[in-house]
Amino acid sequence: MAKKVLKFGGTSVGSIDRILHVAKIIKKEYAAGHKMIVIVSAMSGKTNELISHSKNISKNFNKRELDVLLASGEQVTSALLAGALIEHGVMSKSWLNFQIPILTEGEHSNARIINMNISKIDKFLSERGVAIIPGFQGISKNGDITTLGRGGSDATAVAVAKIFNADSCEIYTDVDGVFSTDPNKIPVAKKIDKISYDEMLELSSLGAKVMQPSAVQTAMMYNIPLEVRSTFTDRHGTEIFNQVNLDYTKSVTGVAYSKDEAKVTLISVQDKPGVAANIFEPLSKNQINVDMVIQNISSDQKTTDITFTIKRDDLLKTIDTIKNNKKIQYESLTHNDKVSKISIVGAGMVSTPGVTFKMFKGLAEEKINILAISTSEIKLSVIINEHDTLKAVKKLHTTFDLD
Amino acid sequence: MAKKVLKFGGTSVGSIDRILHVAKIIKKEYAAGHKMIVIVSAMSGKTNELISHSKNISKNFNKRELDVLLASGEQVTSALLAGALIEHGVMSKSWLNFQIPILTEGEHSNARIINMNISKIDKFLSERGVAIIPGFQGISKNGDITTLGRGGSDATAVAVAKIFNADSCEIYTDVDGVFSTDPNKIPVAKKIDKISYDEMLELSSLGAKVMQPSAVQTAMMYNIPLEVRSTFTDRHGTEIFNQVNLDYTKSVTGVAYSKDEAKVTLISVQDKPGVAANIFEPLSKNQINVDMVIQNISSDQKTTDITFTIKRDDLLKTIDTIKNNKKIQYESLTHNDKVSKISIVGAGMVSTPGVTFKMFKGLAEEKINILAISTSEIKLSVIINEHDTLKAVKKLHTTFDLD
Repeated sequence: MAKKVLKFGGTSVGSIDRILHVAKIIKKEYAAGHKMIVIVSAMSGKTNELISHSKNISKNFNKRELDVLLASGEQVTSALLAGALIEHGVMSKSWLNFQIPILTEGEHSNARIINMNISKIDKFLSERGVAIIPGFQGISKNGDITTLGRGGSDATAVAVAKIFNADSCEIYTDVDGVFSTDPNKIPVAKKIDKISYDEMLELSSLGAKVMQPSAVQTAMMYNIPLEVRSTFTDRHGTEIFNQVNLDYTKSVTGVAYSKDEAKVTLISVQDKPGVAANIFEPLSKNQINVDMVIQNISSDQKTTDITFTIKRDDLLKTIDTIKNNKKIQYESLTHNDKVSKISIVGAGMVSTPGVTFKMFKGLAEEKINILAISTSEIKLSVIINEHDTLKAVKKLHTTFDLD
Repeated sequence: MAKKVLKFGGTSVGSIDRILHVAKIIKKEYAAGHKMIVIVSAMSGKTNELISHSKNISKNFNKRELDVLLASGEQVTSALLAGALIEHGVMSKSWLNFQIPILTEGEHSNARIINMNISKIDKFLSERGVAIIPGFQGISKNGDITTLGRGGSDATAVAVAKIFNADSCEIYTDVDGVFSTDPNKIPVAKKIDKISYDEMLELSSLGAKVMQPSAVQTAMMYNIPLEVRSTFTDRHGTEIFNQVNLDYTKSVTGVAYSKDEAKVTLISVQDKPGVAANIFEPLSKNQINVDMVIQNISSDQKTTDITFTIKRDDLLKTIDTIKNNKKIQYESLTHNDKVSKISIVGAGMVSTPGVTFKMFKGLAEEKINILAISTSEIKLSVIINEHDTLKAVKKLHTTFDLD
């Protein structure tokens, strides 16, 4: 008799048949005696349809109204799922965010959950009711509807699990769990049974789109055990724990890659204090996220070359920003938008010597040129030419015994 | 500088282009200095789509959850319209029912508005904001979402007009106004410029689907001037007033017809007190609305024939109810579901002699058999064979000089 939070993503509730299937999953858990709060996303495609409506009205659609618009998607799924459960003899009720309420702060379309009232739902759970909550949204302190940004249903699930002190938080999705690399492109990819929050965080930041990174971060902060699993099979998924609960036999857990990268190099920048700030401050003001930064040692001690990577979509804005900023002095600017980032992730890396060497050797064997390198405690990323991406991922997957 | 309530129906907001067009209409009124509260329906087709989703889950979908589901439709339109107005430089905001709140009582899917808080919206109007409210819904006193039944956006518009003490309530729809009969079938049908609440009420109860009858009734009770007009033309619509404000040159204002009728006759029912109650009580308990009732004079003073009409959809349920009720004694039951109801409506009828005779004579000239008759102060209805419907409507339209 555990207290569980179950979250079902957009494809899991993407049709009436799928909603009925989800009701069956819940009914089974219900029959096992568990108390459940279920978080649902909008039916797949729905949020994009609503966004496209708004864009047909204005490229700069009012954010408050956008939140009212988008929140309707999860509302629909919640009502349909609650109705399906009642039809199958499970006491259930949808709880819209204003009815709980779930309080948020921060700007529209990017709000954060700060608190929620648990009393009414707790009572309902103890009467053997299954509570359905639309994910991705909340209520601001002046009563407006807010949304939490893309993937925000994960954030709702983790916040609810934390505030209700749930025993587990299960993320139901359309894949079997977290994989050692992209299973759609690399057939030897393997499902990971157990992974640490840190690793999951790195993997999800790096393009393994199984969970929203900030939700993983919250789970890590409050030590909420997660399980990512498939709605469509009975198979065990991936459990996500605190690192100390894991036993590391392998140094590297997974290989991630991201193709939407671009690299910019400023040649012969004056090498004096404050110069980096001069470059990155205007970029940050323009909402451009800089990922990796490499500053070469200057040969003449007076100038240096600075290379950094950004999302490919931001390339034009980045070049404009730098060219229009008089404070930034450099000889020339080069850029390359045909690059990708390959990362190996593993909580065991820090204690395993030679991981870096093994990675570089593997890539060299495939004659893949490394354009930039960045490291952290549990991650090692390199920028390479885009056309080498899959070759590199396959090689590293084999190199680190993940096949 | 009037205070106006504007209501836009489903076809008026049925696409993004139409929502942008509605924004233009509002902007024009805004530029003229009017204070406005705008009530919107769901985009056309949306409510039916959601209902069909619910039916695919359960034929008996939980009513509370159905209301949560359906309310999302008007929420979407409200956000899109508010966003469109902001894009066009008009200060605007959507107000969901819980944010006002609009309080309702009564069962789910068929609730009634009992009160609403006007303070926040009044402040917003005085700051030159245009308030957008999703129609058709409200909040119960325990905070659940409720809906007002089909056509409920009209009910919202009239209730808002009443509570905000608006100068007028304009119902924007896809026709030019109220017609003397169905313009799609009878090309000589004419738009009525002015009509009384009573007449409008009879016409809308009789199948002229321009406004929800109970909304007209509320407008009549509180003397709220209505105007029904087209979203798609600039033409003047139909004004709906208190009878005393109207000048009657014609005895009959319009001819309405309804084809979804059925007629049931019980032959040789015992003619004693309480027998009618025995018949109609079980029908009423089964939610069957009986429309016209005709009891023939019994020839032998002991038995009588009772004829009544119902909606065609209810025919099987009616026959079942009667056959399964032991209290109802009769010799035989006959029924006819190929009948229709033709009504002439006019506030001037009561003071014009010979209207009844003129109607019967007109139908006789076309050799149309009258199966049942029912009269009220401002309405005269007959049941005829369905295949005579259009012939009868055309003849009466001419007979009463409406062409």
